[in-house]
Amino acid sequence: MTEFSEGESVTLDRLKEKMAEFARERNWDQFHSPRNLLLALVGEVGELSEIFQWKGEVPKGLPGWKEDEKLHLGEELSDVLLYLVRLSDICGVDLGKAALRKVELNAIKYPVSQKQNQTNSITDPNTTTTSHGNNNTEEFTG
Amino acid sequence: MTEFSEGESVTLDRLKEKMAEFARERNWDQFHSPRNLLLALVGEVGELSEIFQWKGEVPKGLPGWKEDEKLHLGEELSDVLLYLVRLSDICGVDLGKAALRKVELNAIKYPVSQKQNQTNSITDPNTTTTSHGNNNTEEFTG
Amino acid sequence: MTEFSEGESVTLDRLKEKMAEFARERNWDQFHSPRNLLLALVGEVGELSEIFQWKGEVPKGLPGWKEDEKLHLGEELSDVLLYLVRLSDICGVDLGKAALRKVELNAIKYPVSQKQNQTNSITDPNTTTTSHGNNNTEEFTG
Amino acid sequence: MTEFSEGESVTLDRLKEKMAEFARERNWDQFHSPRNLLLALVGEVGELSEIFQWKGEVPKGLPGWKEDEKLHLGEELSDVLLYLVRLSDICGVDLGKAALRKVELNAIKYPVSQKQNQTNSITDPNTTTTSHGNNNTEEFTG
Repeated sequence: MTEFSEGESVTLDRLKEKMAEFARERNWDQFHSPRNLLLALVGEVGELSEIFQWKGEVPKGLPGWKEDEKLHLGEELSDVLLYLVRLSDICGVDLGKAALRKVELNAIKYPVSQKQNQTNSITDPNTTTTSHGNNNTEEFTG
Repeated sequence: MTEFSEGESVTLDRLKEKMAEFARERNWDQFHSPRNLLLALVGEVGELSEIFQWKGEVPKGLPGWKEDEKLHLGEELSDVLLYLVRLSDICGVDLGKAALRKVELNAIKYPVSQKQNQTNSITDPNTTTTSHGNNNTEEFTG
Repeated sequence: MTEFSEGESVTLDRLKEKMAEFARERNWDQFHSPRNLLLALVGEVGELSEIFQWKGEVPKGLPGWKEDEKLHLGEELSDVLLYLVRLSDICGVDLGKAALRKVELNAIKYPVSQKQNQTNSITDPNTTTTSHGNNNTEEFTG
Repeated sequence: MTEFSEGESVTLDRLKEKMAEFARERNWDQFHSPRNLLLALVGEVGELSEIFQWKGEVPKGLPGWKEDEKLHLGEELSDVLLYLVRLSDICGVDLGKAALRKVELNAIKYPVSQKQNQTNSITDPNTTTTSHGNNNTEEFTG
Protein backbone atom coordinates (compact mmCIF):
# COMPACT_ATOMS: atom_id res chain seq x y z
CA MET A 1 0.00 0.00 0.00
CA THR A 2 2.86 2.39 0.58
CA GLU A 3 4.83 3.25 -2.56
CA PHE A 4 6.28 6.07 -0.43
CA SER A 5 9.66 7.27 -1.62
CA GLU A 6 11.83 9.16 0.83
CA GLY A 7 12.44 12.78 0.02
CA GLU A 8 9.14 13.23 -1.74
CA SER A 9 6.87 15.69 0.07
CA VAL A 10 3.41 14.47 1.04
CA THR A 11 0.48 16.32 -0.52
CA LEU A 12 -2.94 16.82 1.02
CA ASP A 13 -4.51 15.37 -2.13
CA ARG A 14 -2.57 12.15 -1.69
CA LEU A 15 -3.81 11.78 1.89
CA LYS A 16 -7.34 12.56 0.73
CA GLU A 17 -7.20 9.80 -1.84
CA LYS A 18 -5.75 7.32 0.62
CA MET A 19 -8.51 8.06 3.11
CA ALA A 20 -11.22 7.75 0.44
CA GLU A 21 -9.81 4.42 -0.70
CA PHE A 22 -9.49 3.22 2.88
CA ALA A 23 -13.15 3.97 3.63
CA ARG A 24 -14.39 2.53 0.35
CA GLU A 25 -12.58 -0.77 0.80
CA ARG A 26 -14.17 -1.23 4.24
CA ASN A 27 -17.64 0.06 3.36
CA TRP A 28 -17.15 2.85 5.86
CA ASP A 29 -18.47 5.60 3.60
CA GLN A 30 -21.83 5.10 5.29
CA PHE A 31 -20.31 6.27 8.60
CA HIS A 32 -18.38 9.20 7.21
CA SER A 33 -20.95 11.96 7.53
CA PRO A 34 -19.67 15.47 8.33
CA ARG A 35 -20.68 15.47 12.00
CA ASN A 36 -19.53 11.90 12.62
CA LEU A 37 -16.09 12.84 11.27
CA LEU A 38 -16.06 16.08 13.24
CA LEU A 39 -16.72 14.24 16.50
CA ALA A 40 -14.04 11.68 15.59
CA LEU A 41 -11.66 14.61 15.05
CA VAL A 42 -12.54 16.00 18.48
CA GLY A 43 -11.84 12.58 19.94
CA GLU A 44 -8.36 12.57 18.40
CA VAL A 45 -7.64 16.12 19.61
CA GLY A 46 -8.48 14.76 23.06
CA GLU A 47 -5.91 11.98 22.69
CA LEU A 48 -3.34 14.49 21.48
CA SER A 49 -4.03 16.64 24.55
CA GLU A 50 -3.61 13.67 26.87
CA ILE A 51 0.00 13.35 25.73
CA PHE A 52 0.73 16.86 27.00
CA GLN A 53 -1.65 17.08 29.94
CA TRP A 54 0.58 16.40 32.97
CA LYS A 55 3.82 17.71 31.58
CA GLY A 56 3.77 21.39 32.49
CA GLU A 57 5.48 23.59 29.94
CA VAL A 58 7.22 21.60 27.19
CA PRO A 59 10.20 23.11 25.32
CA LYS A 60 10.44 23.14 21.52
CA GLY A 61 11.90 20.00 20.03
CA LEU A 62 10.73 17.94 23.04
CA PRO A 63 14.16 17.41 24.66
CA GLY A 64 14.16 14.40 26.98
CA TRP A 65 11.17 12.67 25.38
CA LYS A 66 11.69 8.98 24.70
CA GLU A 67 11.57 7.69 21.15
CA ASP A 68 8.30 5.82 21.71
CA GLU A 69 6.67 8.94 23.17
CA LYS A 70 7.59 10.87 20.05
CA LEU A 71 6.28 8.07 17.86
CA HIS A 72 3.02 8.09 19.81
CA LEU A 73 2.80 11.86 19.39
CA GLY A 74 3.30 11.48 15.62
CA GLU A 75 0.42 9.01 15.56
CA GLU A 76 -1.98 11.32 17.38
CA LEU A 77 -1.01 14.32 15.24
CA SER A 78 -1.63 12.10 12.22
CA ASP A 79 -5.03 10.97 13.46
CA VAL A 80 -6.13 14.59 13.72
CA LEU A 81 -4.78 15.31 10.25
CA LEU A 82 -6.40 12.26 8.64
CA TYR A 83 -9.85 13.05 10.00
CA LEU A 84 -9.41 16.70 9.06
CA VAL A 85 -8.53 15.72 5.48
CA ARG A 86 -11.45 13.31 5.33
CA LEU A 87 -13.90 15.83 6.81
CA SER A 88 -12.83 18.44 4.28
CA ASP A 89 -13.25 15.96 1.43
CA ILE A 90 -16.73 14.91 2.58
CA CYS A 91 -17.72 18.59 2.86
CA GLY A 92 -16.41 19.34 -0.63
CA VAL A 93 -13.72 21.72 0.63
CA ASP A 94 -10.31 21.81 -1.12
CA LEU A 95 -8.26 21.92 2.06
CA GLY A 96 -4.90 22.75 0.49
CA LYS A 97 -6.32 25.62 -1.51
CA ALA A 98 -8.27 26.88 1.50
CA ALA A 99 -5.16 26.74 3.70
CA LEU A 100 -3.05 28.78 1.25
CA ARG A 101 -5.86 31.31 1.00
CA LYS A 102 -6.05 31.50 4.81
CA VAL A 103 -2.33 32.16 5.11
CA GLU A 104 -2.80 35.10 2.76
CA LEU A 105 -5.76 36.42 4.75
CA ASN A 106 -3.70 36.14 7.93
CA ALA A 107 -0.86 38.08 6.29
CA ILE A 108 -3.29 40.92 5.57
CA LYS A 109 -4.81 40.75 9.05
CA TYR A 110 -1.43 40.70 10.79
CA PRO A 111 0.89 42.83 8.67
CA VAL A 112 4.61 42.70 9.38
CA SER A 113 5.43 45.94 11.16
CA GLN A 114 8.72 47.65 10.37
CA LYS A 115 9.63 47.25 13.99
CA GLN A 116 8.88 43.54 14.05
CA ASN A 117 10.85 43.08 10.88
CA GLN A 118 14.02 44.42 12.44
CA THR A 119 16.12 41.86 14.19
CA ASN A 120 16.63 44.13 17.16
CA SER A 121 12.91 44.33 17.86
CA ILE A 122 13.52 41.20 19.87
CA THR A 123 15.17 43.43 22.44
CA ASP A 124 11.76 44.75 23.40
CA PRO A 125 9.73 41.62 24.08
CA ASN A 126 7.23 43.37 26.32
CA THR A 127 5.85 45.50 23.54
CA THR A 128 5.52 42.53 21.24
CA THR A 129 3.96 40.45 23.97
CA THR A 130 1.43 43.07 24.78
CA SER A 131 0.28 43.66 21.24
CA HIS A 132 0.08 39.94 20.64
CA GLY A 133 -1.76 39.46 23.89
CA ASN A 134 -4.42 41.93 22.91
CA ASN A 135 -5.16 40.05 19.73
CA ASN A 136 -4.96 36.65 21.25
CA THR A 137 -8.53 35.49 20.99
CA GLU A 138 -8.68 36.40 17.34
CA GLU A 139 -5.45 35.18 15.82
CA PHE A 140 -5.94 33.19 12.63
CA THR A 141 -9.68 33.45 12.99
CA GLY A 142 -11.86 34.51 10.09
CA MET B 1 3.57 35.90 -0.77
CA THR B 2 1.53 33.34 -2.69
CA GLU B 3 3.13 32.13 -5.93
CA PHE B 4 0.37 29.49 -5.93
CA SER B 5 -0.31 27.96 -9.30
CA GLU B 6 -3.66 26.28 -9.85
CA GLY B 7 -3.56 22.54 -10.35
CA GLU B 8 -0.49 22.07 -8.22
CA SER B 9 -1.19 20.00 -5.12
CA VAL B 10 -0.31 21.56 -1.80
CA THR B 11 2.30 19.75 0.28
CA LEU B 12 2.54 19.69 4.06
CA ASP B 13 6.15 20.85 3.81
CA ARG B 14 5.08 23.94 1.92
CA LEU B 15 2.54 24.85 4.60
CA LYS B 16 5.17 24.18 7.27
CA GLU B 17 7.58 26.59 5.61
CA LYS B 18 4.92 29.24 5.17
CA MET B 19 3.97 29.02 8.84
CA ALA B 20 7.61 29.19 9.94
CA GLU B 21 8.21 32.24 7.76
CA PHE B 22 5.00 33.86 9.00
CA ALA B 23 6.01 33.48 12.64
CA ARG B 24 9.59 34.56 12.04
CA GLU B 25 8.56 37.76 10.26
CA ARG B 26 6.34 38.75 13.17
CA ASN B 27 8.67 37.63 15.98
CA TRP B 28 6.03 35.15 17.05
CA ASP B 29 8.42 32.24 17.50
CA GLN B 30 8.56 33.19 21.17
CA PHE B 31 4.85 32.35 21.52
CA HIS B 32 4.95 29.13 19.54
CA SER B 33 5.67 26.64 22.30
CA PRO B 34 4.10 23.18 21.98
CA ARG B 35 1.37 23.68 24.57
CA ASN B 36 0.53 27.21 23.39
CA LEU B 37 0.02 25.86 19.87
CA LEU B 38 -1.95 22.89 21.14
CA LEU B 39 -4.38 25.16 23.00
CA ALA B 40 -4.65 27.39 19.92
CA LEU B 41 -5.51 24.25 17.93
CA VAL B 42 -8.22 23.35 20.46
CA GLY B 43 -9.58 26.88 20.10
CA GLU B 44 -9.86 26.44 16.34
CA VAL B 45 -11.53 23.03 16.69
CA GLY B 46 -14.06 24.84 18.85
CA GLU B 47 -14.75 27.36 16.10
CA LEU B 48 -15.08 24.53 13.58
CA SER B 49 -17.61 22.84 15.86
CA GLU B 50 -19.63 26.04 16.20
CA ILE B 51 -20.33 25.94 12.47
CA PHE B 52 -22.03 22.56 12.84
CA GLN B 53 -23.51 22.90 16.32
CA TRP B 54 -27.17 23.77 15.68
CA LYS B 55 -27.59 22.06 12.33
CA GLY B 56 -28.62 18.53 13.26
CA GLU B 57 -27.34 15.92 10.84
CA VAL B 58 -25.61 17.43 7.79
CA PRO B 59 -25.49 15.48 4.50
CA LYS B 60 -22.26 14.97 2.56
CA GLY B 61 -21.40 17.80 0.20
CA LEU B 62 -23.35 20.28 2.34
CA PRO B 63 -26.33 20.75 0.01
CA GLY B 64 -28.15 24.02 0.70
CA TRP B 65 -25.21 25.76 2.39
CA LYS B 66 -24.59 29.28 1.17
CA GLU B 67 -21.31 30.11 -0.52
CA ASP B 68 -20.12 32.27 2.38
CA GLU B 69 -20.88 29.51 4.88
CA LYS B 70 -18.70 27.13 2.86
CA LEU B 71 -15.96 29.74 2.68
CA HIS B 72 -16.14 30.19 6.43
CA LEU B 73 -15.96 26.43 6.89
CA GLY B 74 -12.86 26.31 4.68
CA GLU B 75 -11.26 28.96 6.88
CA GLU B 76 -11.90 27.08 10.10
CA LEU B 77 -10.70 23.78 8.63
CA SER B 78 -7.58 25.65 7.51
CA ASP B 79 -6.98 27.18 10.93
CA VAL B 80 -6.97 23.70 12.46
CA LEU B 81 -4.60 22.47 9.74
CA LEU B 82 -2.20 25.39 10.06
CA TYR B 83 -1.83 25.04 13.82
CA LEU B 84 -1.46 21.28 13.44
CA VAL B 85 1.32 21.75 10.90
CA ARG B 86 3.01 24.31 13.11
CA LEU B 87 2.68 22.20 16.25
CA SER B 88 4.21 19.22 14.45
CA ASP B 89 7.09 21.35 13.21
CA ILE B 90 7.81 22.78 16.66
CA CYS B 91 7.74 19.26 18.12
CA GLY B 92 10.15 18.00 15.45
CA VAL B 93 7.59 15.59 13.95
CA ASP B 94 7.52 15.05 10.17
CA LEU B 95 3.75 15.18 9.85
CA GLY B 96 3.48 13.90 6.27
CA LYS B 97 5.70 10.92 6.94
CA ALA B 98 3.88 10.19 10.21
CA ALA B 99 0.49 10.36 8.47
CA LEU B 100 1.49 7.90 5.74
CA ARG B 101 2.85 5.56 8.40
CA LYS B 102 -0.40 5.86 10.35
CA VAL B 103 -2.49 4.96 7.30
CA GLU B 104 -0.42 1.79 7.00
CA LEU B 105 -0.85 0.96 10.69
CA ASN B 106 -4.60 1.47 10.31
CA ALA B 107 -4.66 -0.86 7.30
CA ILE B 108 -3.08 -3.57 9.46
CA LYS B 109 -5.41 -2.87 12.38
CA TYR B 110 -8.53 -2.85 10.21
CA PRO B 111 -7.90 -5.40 7.44
CA VAL B 112 -10.29 -5.46 4.50
CA SER B 113 -12.45 -8.51 5.03
CA GLN B 114 -13.43 -10.60 2.00
CA LYS B 115 -17.02 -9.84 2.82
CA GLN B 116 -16.46 -6.10 3.00
CA ASN B 117 -14.59 -6.17 -0.26
CA GLN B 118 -17.59 -7.59 -2.13
CA THR B 119 -19.96 -5.00 -3.47
CA ASN B 120 -22.97 -6.90 -2.21
CA SER B 121 -21.77 -6.74 1.38
CA ILE B 122 -23.59 -3.45 1.44
CA THR B 123 -26.80 -5.46 1.53
CA ASP B 124 -26.04 -6.39 5.12
CA PRO B 125 -25.41 -3.07 6.79
CA ASN B 126 -26.27 -4.36 10.25
CA THR B 127 -23.29 -6.66 10.36
CA THR B 128 -20.98 -3.91 9.23
CA THR B 129 -22.52 -1.43 11.61
CA THR B 130 -22.19 -3.76 14.54
CA SER B 131 -18.57 -4.63 13.93
CA HIS B 132 -17.73 -0.99 13.36
CA GLY B 133 -19.71 0.03 16.43
CA ASN B 134 -17.75 -2.33 18.63
CA ASN B 135 -14.49 -0.82 17.58
CA ASN B 136 -15.64 2.73 17.71
CA THR B 137 -13.60 4.08 20.57
CA GLU B 138 -10.44 2.71 19.07
CA GLU B 139 -10.59 3.52 15.39
CA PHE B 140 -7.42 5.13 14.06
CA THR B 141 -5.97 5.19 17.54
CA GLY B 142 -2.47 3.92 18.15
CA MET C 1 -15.66 8.18 51.37
CA THR C 2 -19.25 8.38 50.17
CA GLU C 3 -21.75 9.42 52.81
CA PHE C 4 -24.08 10.16 49.86
CA SER C 5 -27.73 10.11 50.77
CA GLU C 6 -30.25 9.58 48.00
CA GLY C 7 -32.53 12.48 47.25
CA GLU C 8 -30.02 15.10 48.30
CA SER C 9 -28.96 17.33 45.42
CA VAL C 10 -25.25 17.53 44.70
CA THR C 11 -23.64 20.94 45.04
CA LEU C 12 -20.64 22.21 43.09
CA ASP C 13 -18.92 23.07 46.38
CA ARG C 14 -19.18 19.48 47.51
CA LEU C 15 -17.55 18.24 44.31
CA LYS C 16 -14.87 20.91 44.68
CA GLU C 17 -14.04 19.73 48.18
CA LYS C 18 -13.98 16.10 47.12
CA MET C 19 -11.58 16.86 44.27
CA ALA C 20 -9.32 18.93 46.53
CA GLU C 21 -9.22 16.15 49.10
CA PHE C 22 -8.58 13.56 46.40
CA ALA C 23 -5.59 15.46 45.03
CA ARG C 24 -4.19 16.26 48.46
CA GLU C 25 -4.30 12.64 49.61
CA ARG C 26 -2.31 11.55 46.55
CA ASN C 27 0.12 14.46 46.45
CA TRP C 28 -1.31 15.43 43.08
CA ASP C 29 -1.60 19.13 43.83
CA GLN C 30 1.79 19.52 42.18
CA PHE C 31 0.29 18.40 38.85
CA HIS C 32 -2.88 20.45 39.08
CA SER C 33 -1.78 23.64 37.38
CA PRO C 34 -4.40 25.52 35.32
CA ARG C 35 -3.11 24.45 31.91
CA ASN C 36 -2.51 20.84 32.96
CA LEU C 37 -6.10 20.62 34.14
CA LEU C 38 -7.38 22.36 31.01
CA LEU C 39 -5.64 19.83 28.77
CA ALA C 40 -6.98 17.00 30.93
CA LEU C 41 -10.45 18.48 30.45
CA VAL C 42 -9.93 18.56 26.67
CA GLY C 43 -8.89 14.91 26.85
CA GLU C 44 -12.13 14.01 28.60
CA VAL C 45 -14.23 15.99 26.12
CA GLY C 46 -12.52 13.86 23.47
CA GLU C 47 -13.61 10.68 25.22
CA LEU C 48 -17.14 12.02 25.54
CA SER C 49 -17.17 12.76 21.81
CA GLU C 50 -15.99 9.24 20.99
CA ILE C 51 -19.17 7.87 22.52
CA PHE C 52 -21.25 9.80 19.99
CA GLN C 53 -18.92 9.81 17.00
CA TRP C 54 -20.28 7.01 14.77
CA LYS C 55 -23.91 7.19 15.81
CA GLY C 56 -25.38 9.75 13.46
CA GLU C 57 -28.16 11.79 15.03
CA VAL C 58 -29.11 10.58 18.51
CA PRO C 59 -32.63 11.24 19.88
CA LYS C 60 -33.24 12.75 23.31
CA GLY C 61 -33.31 10.23 26.13
CA LEU C 62 -31.06 7.86 24.16
CA PRO C 63 -33.70 5.24 23.29
CA GLY C 64 -32.12 1.90 22.43
CA TRP C 65 -28.86 2.51 24.29
CA LYS C 66 -27.76 -0.36 26.49
CA GLU C 67 -27.45 0.16 30.22
CA ASP C 68 -23.65 -0.12 30.15
CA GLU C 69 -23.43 2.46 27.36
CA LYS C 70 -25.43 4.90 29.48
CA LEU C 71 -23.23 4.15 32.47
CA HIS C 72 -20.14 4.82 30.37
CA LEU C 73 -21.67 8.07 29.15
CA GLY C 74 -22.32 9.12 32.75
CA GLU C 75 -18.68 8.47 33.55
CA GLU C 76 -17.38 10.61 30.71
CA LEU C 77 -19.80 13.44 31.48
CA SER C 78 -18.56 13.22 35.08
CA ASP C 79 -14.90 13.31 34.07
CA VAL C 80 -15.50 16.56 32.22
CA LEU C 81 -17.38 17.98 35.19
CA LEU C 82 -14.77 16.96 37.75
CA TYR C 83 -11.90 18.55 35.83
CA LEU C 84 -14.01 21.64 35.22
CA VAL C 85 -14.73 21.97 38.93
CA ARG C 86 -11.07 21.41 39.79
CA LEU C 87 -9.84 23.88 37.13
CA SER C 88 -12.22 26.53 38.46
CA ASP C 89 -11.05 25.94 42.01
CA ILE C 90 -7.37 26.18 41.06
CA CYS C 91 -8.09 29.41 39.17
CA GLY C 92 -9.94 30.87 42.14
CA VAL C 93 -13.27 31.04 40.30
CA ASP C 94 -16.50 30.33 42.19
CA LEU C 95 -18.07 28.18 39.47
CA GLY C 96 -21.58 28.01 40.89
CA LYS C 97 -21.81 31.75 41.35
CA ALA C 98 -20.32 32.36 37.90
CA ALA C 99 -22.80 29.96 36.30
CA LEU C 100 -25.83 31.66 37.88
CA ARG C 101 -24.48 35.02 36.76
CA LYS C 102 -23.99 33.67 33.23
CA VAL C 103 -27.58 32.41 33.06
CA GLU C 104 -28.70 35.95 33.89
CA LEU C 105 -26.43 37.47 31.24
CA ASN C 106 -27.82 34.99 28.70
CA ALA C 107 -31.37 35.96 29.66
CA ILE C 108 -30.53 39.59 28.87
CA LYS C 109 -28.75 38.68 25.64
CA TYR C 110 -31.57 36.41 24.44
CA PRO C 111 -34.80 37.96 25.71
CA VAL C 112 -37.97 35.92 25.48
CA SER C 113 -39.93 37.39 22.60
CA GLN C 114 -43.70 37.62 22.86
CA LYS C 115 -43.90 35.41 19.84
CA GLN C 116 -41.61 32.77 21.26
CA ASN C 117 -43.53 32.82 24.49
CA GLN C 118 -46.76 31.83 22.76
CA THR C 119 -47.28 28.14 22.41
CA ASN C 120 -48.40 28.51 18.82
CA SER C 121 -45.10 30.03 17.76
CA ILE C 122 -44.01 26.42 17.36
CA THR C 123 -46.20 26.35 14.24
CA ASP C 124 -43.64 28.54 12.50
CA PRO C 125 -40.39 26.68 13.04
CA ASN C 126 -38.66 28.27 10.06
CA THR C 127 -38.72 31.70 11.59
CA THR C 128 -37.39 30.41 14.86
CA THR C 129 -34.77 28.35 13.10
CA THR C 130 -33.56 31.28 11.07
CA SER C 131 -33.25 33.68 13.95
CA HIS C 132 -31.50 31.07 16.03
CA GLY C 133 -29.28 30.17 13.12
CA ASN C 134 -28.12 33.74 12.73
CA ASN C 135 -26.97 33.87 16.30
CA ASN C 136 -25.47 30.46 16.37
CA THR C 137 -21.80 31.25 16.70
CA GLU C 138 -22.48 33.54 19.61
CA GLU C 139 -24.97 31.77 21.81
CA PHE C 140 -24.03 31.70 25.47
CA THR C 141 -20.75 33.43 24.67
CA GLY C 142 -19.60 36.42 26.62
CA MET D 1 -34.87 35.37 37.39
CA THR D 2 -32.19 34.97 40.06
CA GLU D 3 -33.44 34.64 43.62
CA PHE D 4 -29.82 33.73 44.44
CA SER D 5 -28.94 34.18 48.09
CA GLU D 6 -25.28 34.56 49.00
CA GLY D 7 -23.79 31.73 50.99
CA GLU D 8 -26.09 29.11 49.55
CA SER D 9 -24.23 26.50 47.50
CA VAL D 10 -25.38 25.97 43.93
CA THR D 11 -26.69 22.52 43.07
CA LEU D 12 -26.48 20.80 39.69
CA ASP D 13 -30.23 20.23 39.82
CA ARG D 14 -30.86 23.94 40.12
CA LEU D 15 -28.72 24.67 37.07
CA LYS D 16 -30.49 21.86 35.20
CA GLU D 17 -33.88 23.40 35.94
CA LYS D 18 -32.71 26.85 34.96
CA MET D 19 -31.41 25.59 31.63
CA ALA D 20 -34.61 23.64 30.94
CA GLU D 21 -36.72 26.70 31.69
CA PHE D 22 -34.44 28.89 29.56
CA ALA D 23 -34.81 26.62 26.55
CA ARG D 24 -38.54 26.14 27.00
CA GLU D 25 -39.23 29.88 27.18
CA ARG D 26 -37.38 30.44 23.90
CA ASN D 27 -38.67 27.36 22.06
CA TRP D 28 -35.12 26.09 21.86
CA ASP D 29 -35.90 22.54 22.93
CA GLN D 30 -36.07 21.71 19.24
CA PHE D 31 -32.35 22.54 18.89
CA HIS D 32 -31.22 20.77 22.03
CA SER D 33 -30.47 17.32 20.66
CA PRO D 34 -27.57 15.41 22.26
CA ARG D 35 -25.10 15.94 19.40
CA ASN D 36 -26.05 19.60 18.92
CA LEU D 37 -25.36 20.22 22.60
CA LEU D 38 -22.14 18.22 22.48
CA LEU D 39 -20.81 20.33 19.61
CA ALA D 40 -21.87 23.49 21.44
CA LEU D 41 -19.91 22.21 24.45
CA VAL D 42 -16.84 21.64 22.26
CA GLY D 43 -17.22 25.19 20.99
CA GLU D 44 -17.17 26.53 24.53
CA VAL D 45 -14.13 24.43 25.46
CA GLY D 46 -12.45 26.07 22.50
CA GLU D 47 -13.25 29.53 23.87
CA LEU D 48 -11.96 28.49 27.28
CA SER D 49 -8.72 27.31 25.66
CA GLU D 50 -8.31 30.61 23.83
CA ILE D 51 -8.03 32.40 27.16
CA PHE D 52 -4.97 30.32 28.06
CA GLN D 53 -3.44 29.78 24.63
CA TRP D 54 -0.64 32.36 24.46
CA LYS D 55 0.14 32.60 28.15
CA GLY D 56 2.72 29.87 28.67
CA GLU D 57 2.49 28.24 32.08
CA VAL D 58 -0.03 29.93 34.38
CA PRO D 59 0.37 29.69 38.19
CA LYS D 60 -2.46 28.68 40.50
CA GLY D 61 -4.73 31.53 41.54
CA LEU D 62 -3.87 33.47 38.36
CA PRO D 63 -1.66 36.15 39.96
CA GLY D 64 -1.41 39.23 37.77
CA TRP D 65 -4.61 38.61 35.84
CA LYS D 66 -6.87 41.64 35.54
CA GLU D 67 -10.34 41.56 37.06
CA ASP D 68 -12.05 41.54 33.65
CA GLU D 69 -9.89 38.63 32.48
CA LYS D 70 -10.99 36.62 35.51
CA LEU D 71 -14.60 37.56 34.88
CA HIS D 72 -14.26 36.43 31.26
CA LEU D 73 -12.71 33.17 32.44
CA GLY D 74 -15.64 32.62 34.80
CA GLU D 75 -18.02 33.09 31.89
CA GLU D 76 -16.28 30.54 29.70
CA LEU D 77 -16.04 28.01 32.53
CA SER D 78 -19.77 28.58 33.07
CA ASP D 79 -20.62 28.09 29.41
CA VAL D 80 -18.93 24.70 29.48
CA LEU D 81 -20.77 23.78 32.68
CA LEU D 82 -24.17 24.93 31.44
CA TYR D 83 -23.96 22.91 28.22
CA LEU D 84 -22.65 19.92 30.16
CA VAL D 85 -25.59 20.12 32.56
CA ARG D 86 -28.03 20.49 29.67
CA LEU D 87 -26.47 17.64 27.66
CA SER D 88 -26.69 15.35 30.70
CA ASP D 89 -30.33 16.28 31.23
CA ILE D 90 -31.25 15.66 27.59
CA CYS D 91 -29.49 12.29 27.74
CA GLY D 92 -31.33 11.34 30.92
CA VAL D 93 -28.15 11.18 33.01
CA ASP D 94 -28.24 12.35 36.64
CA LEU D 95 -24.96 14.27 36.48
CA GLY D 96 -24.52 14.88 40.22
CA LYS D 97 -25.11 11.24 41.08
CA ALA D 98 -22.83 10.10 38.25
CA ALA D 99 -20.07 12.47 39.39
CA LEU D 100 -20.15 11.21 43.00
CA ARG D 101 -20.03 7.64 41.72
CA LYS D 102 -17.07 8.52 39.49
CA VAL D 103 -15.14 10.00 42.40
CA GLU D 104 -15.61 6.71 44.21
CA LEU D 105 -14.46 4.70 41.19
CA ASN D 106 -11.40 6.93 40.94
CA ALA D 107 -10.62 6.36 44.60
CA ILE D 108 -10.61 2.61 43.96
CA LYS D 109 -8.54 2.97 40.79
CA TYR D 110 -5.98 5.27 42.42
CA PRO D 111 -5.70 4.13 46.04
CA VAL D 112 -3.83 6.35 48.46
CA SER D 113 -0.50 4.68 49.02
CA GLN D 114 1.03 4.71 52.50
CA LYS D 115 3.95 6.56 51.05
CA GLN D 116 1.80 9.22 49.40
CA ASN D 117 -0.17 9.64 52.57
CA GLN D 118 2.93 10.60 54.54
CA THR D 119 3.70 14.27 54.50
CA ASN D 120 7.37 13.62 53.90
CA SER D 121 6.69 11.74 50.68
CA ILE D 122 6.76 15.18 49.13
CA THR D 123 10.49 15.09 49.65
CA ASP D 124 10.75 12.56 46.85
CA PRO D 125 8.88 14.22 43.99
CA ASN D 126 10.64 12.19 41.30
CA THR D 127 9.11 8.94 42.41
CA THR D 128 5.67 10.44 42.57
CA THR D 129 6.12 12.16 39.24
CA THR D 130 7.20 8.98 37.55
CA SER D 131 4.35 6.85 38.82
CA HIS D 132 1.88 9.55 37.91
CA GLY D 133 3.46 9.98 34.51
CA ASN D 134 3.03 6.31 33.71
CA ASN D 135 -0.68 6.49 34.36
CA ASN D 136 -1.24 9.78 32.72
CA THR D 137 -3.33 8.82 29.71
CA GLU D 138 -5.69 6.90 31.93
CA GLU D 139 -6.41 9.11 34.89
CA PHE D 140 -10.08 9.52 35.68
CA THR D 141 -11.01 7.45 32.65
CA GLY D 142 -13.51 4.65 32.97
